[in-house]
Amino acid sequence: MRNVAVIGVGNSKFGNRSDVNIAELAYESTKPAFEEAGITPKDVEFVAVGSVGAGAWYEELLPAVVSAEYCGLTGAGLVRCEAACSSGSAAFQTAYSAIASGQAEITMALGIEKMREIDTPTSMEWIGRAGYYFWEFHNFGVTFPAYYALYANAHMAKFGTTEEDLALVAVKNHKYGSMNPKAHLQNKITVDDVLSSMVIASPLKLFDCCPMSDGSAAVILASEEKVKELKIDTPIWVAGIGYSSGTANLSKRKDYVGLEASVLAAQRAYKTAGITPDQIDFAEVHDCFTIAEILAYEDIGLCAKGEGVKLIREGQTEIGGKIPVNMDGGLKAKGHPIGTTGCSMIYELTKQLKEEAVEKSRQVPLKNYIGLAHNVGGTGHYCYVTILRR
Amino acid sequence: MRNVAVIGVGNSKFGNRSDVNIAELAYESTKPAFEEAGITPKDVEFVAVGSVGAGAWYEELLPAVVSAEYCGLTGAGLVRCEAACSSGSAAFQTAYSAIASGQAEITMALGIEKMREIDTPTSMEWIGRAGYYFWEFHNFGVTFPAYYALYANAHMAKFGTTEEDLALVAVKNHKYGSMNPKAHLQNKITVDDVLSSMVIASPLKLFDCCPMSDGSAAVILASEEKVKELKIDTPIWVAGIGYSSGTANLSKRKDYVGLEASVLAAQRAYKTAGITPDQIDFAEVHDCFTIAEILAYEDIGLCAKGEGVKLIREGQTEIGGKIPVNMDGGLKAKGHPIGTTGCSMIYELTKQLKEEAVEKSRQVPLKNYIGLAHNVGGTGHYCYVTILRR
Repeated sequence: MRNVAVIGVGNSKFGNRSDVNIAELAYESTKPAFEEAGITPKDVEFVAVGSVGAGAWYEELLPAVVSAEYCGLTGAGLVRCEAACSSGSAAFQTAYSAIASGQAEITMALGIEKMREIDTPTSMEWIGRAGYYFWEFHNFGVTFPAYYALYANAHMAKFGTTEEDLALVAVKNHKYGSMNPKAHLQNKITVDDVLSSMVIASPLKLFDCCPMSDGSAAVILASEEKVKELKIDTPIWVAGIGYSSGTANLSKRKDYVGLEASVLAAQRAYKTAGITPDQIDFAEVHDCFTIAEILAYEDIGLCAKGEGVKLIREGQTEIGGKIPVNMDGGLKAKGHPIGTTGCSMIYELTKQLKEEAVEKSRQVPLKNYIGLAHNVGGTGHYCYVTILRR
Repeated sequence: MRNVAVIGVGNSKFGNRSDVNIAELAYESTKPAFEEAGITPKDVEFVAVGSVGAGAWYEELLPAVVSAEYCGLTGAGLVRCEAACSSGSAAFQTAYSAIASGQAEITMALGIEKMREIDTPTSMEWIGRAGYYFWEFHNFGVTFPAYYALYANAHMAKFGTTEEDLALVAVKNHKYGSMNPKAHLQNKITVDDVLSSMVIASPLKLFDCCPMSDGSAAVILASEEKVKELKIDTPIWVAGIGYSSGTANLSKRKDYVGLEASVLAAQRAYKTAGITPDQIDFAEVHDCFTIAEILAYEDIGLCAKGEGVKLIREGQTEIGGKIPVNMDGGLKAKGHPIGTTGCSMIYELTKQLKEEAVEKSRQVPLKNYIGLAHNVGGTGHYCYVTILRR
């Protein structure tokens, strides 16, 4: 396997981006990525685009084509990757593999999503279809907050997790989101704000849920030979990628207090990287709902099963704690343009590992110079875990 | 780069498959693929699914998840690849790269598409959107037959290609489709049948166009080590993959008598495989319309630009000619479930190279034991060329 490094990243402002179309949104992240890498679009041999809503919640059916073209990438090999909310990570894995396999020297992973072109109820229907359409959505009308509410109730019943614990996740992620100018939600909130917000699917309230966001993120990868040739100062190496999938049929899940796909993907990523969970300095995890962040702590081995609430209660996942998590605000506050999120996590890992996050207040302390991104698709249908190291 | 081989393939019956859902359709191709490879679904570490119409012309938004689950593949890494009509080839490239990069030993590429769940005008609208949505579709109402009619008119004006020449492509492909029990259209037709059929977009008539088909195709790949371990009798090796992309905006094309993406993808594939076009024994090319097959002859170097009509007039692309093309009936007669086609081309290459095509009447003579698949997405937005060798 050839060594592959991240040599440039970009991230657009997340939020309601009705000011730009999908291609213009892509440009906002590719431009700084090219500047950081010191290359031009014509140097890129293969582009993998993460995006889900093509023809569903935004109009372009071939977003990869129009976005690649607008960003000057036409001529490169091209594919759009869909792995639901982990599409950005799937695109990263695809762009990585093109180099690791020896097919290319420089590739790009580009996450793009516009979720706010249509009304929210319609978007919610589309996302609901991404569960098990035929049975759970069509017959029972289950949408995503309802799935995660089920996990929350199971976790509360089994481990004594409380609504206040869930609220602490939202408070933490809004706190760090408030320090991130690219975040969709930059308002600090309190536990009371969360608890008194509108109930969406009990016990989840409005502030337990991530927003519907537009946004893009771009990652440029290069082979070790190209890193040397380009004299890249601080390449950030891909140490390991793990992936797995889980049943779409919730009635077939073993339990509801964790995601098996996350457990398997994390184990595979650690094995490939040759490290143990205690060696990572910080993590980006998939907090589409507050309960999801607690499940992630446990599933990726930051603590034992059932002990996730201890981490959040003790502030161990803040800066100064055992392992900072979601220092960009996470999906919860930074926002969750679903095809983009995986690439945006890689953006954050890279900036943190390079100690170039502009906002020093949210720079994590680095010991081993290793970061991890955990990205879930659907309600555990897909999972990708990516480990980067400086 | 590690050596990777195709060790098992399957192809469902193509046609109107309202008798099955998308997951059942997938099973029809994965089952024989597993039997041929002599492995079980649990041996597969990564699955790349080619499919386009999720949520557009069929209802499941996450077809990869439900299909993988129905076929026993849950737990493997999973991604859906979209590259318009070349999605199946993109999935093959992705499944290939996972092994070539050292991440996996056994992977699967699975093409699945159901195009007939909704009415044809709606499907045509969706496919029309896959041009340059904003300008060409939205403002001018250009659909796919109109794009290819433009190419046909340009080719006729520049090279003296006639409507009869185009008809010869349809006649040839229906002839071989009639020998292929998996083909959607199995009726032999005459030049007069084509010329007298309804005009769709002049000069293209109904019989110049491929049908809207449902169908699936599965390909199992393995590393050289696994090929030895499994004692595979006749592995079919991946010799080279080339890819490219082209502008979505027809007004920016250099000319209309060929697809630049095809030219670049083919050149890259030949270079990787270390061969020249005259070394391939036979080809599968992307004949979504009859003119497309003639463009393909020229673009992938089977003849010089402008000389494609000579090949079809002289019968050089039939069995017994210089280079047989589309001996399974092609998209024109076998059918074109757009996410499936690329994998179905690999199915045909593999069966031909193993000399295991059941119908001896359409078995190509093999000299170098090399076959090529050429798969276009959109109207030249994407192109993948894959070369296999025994």
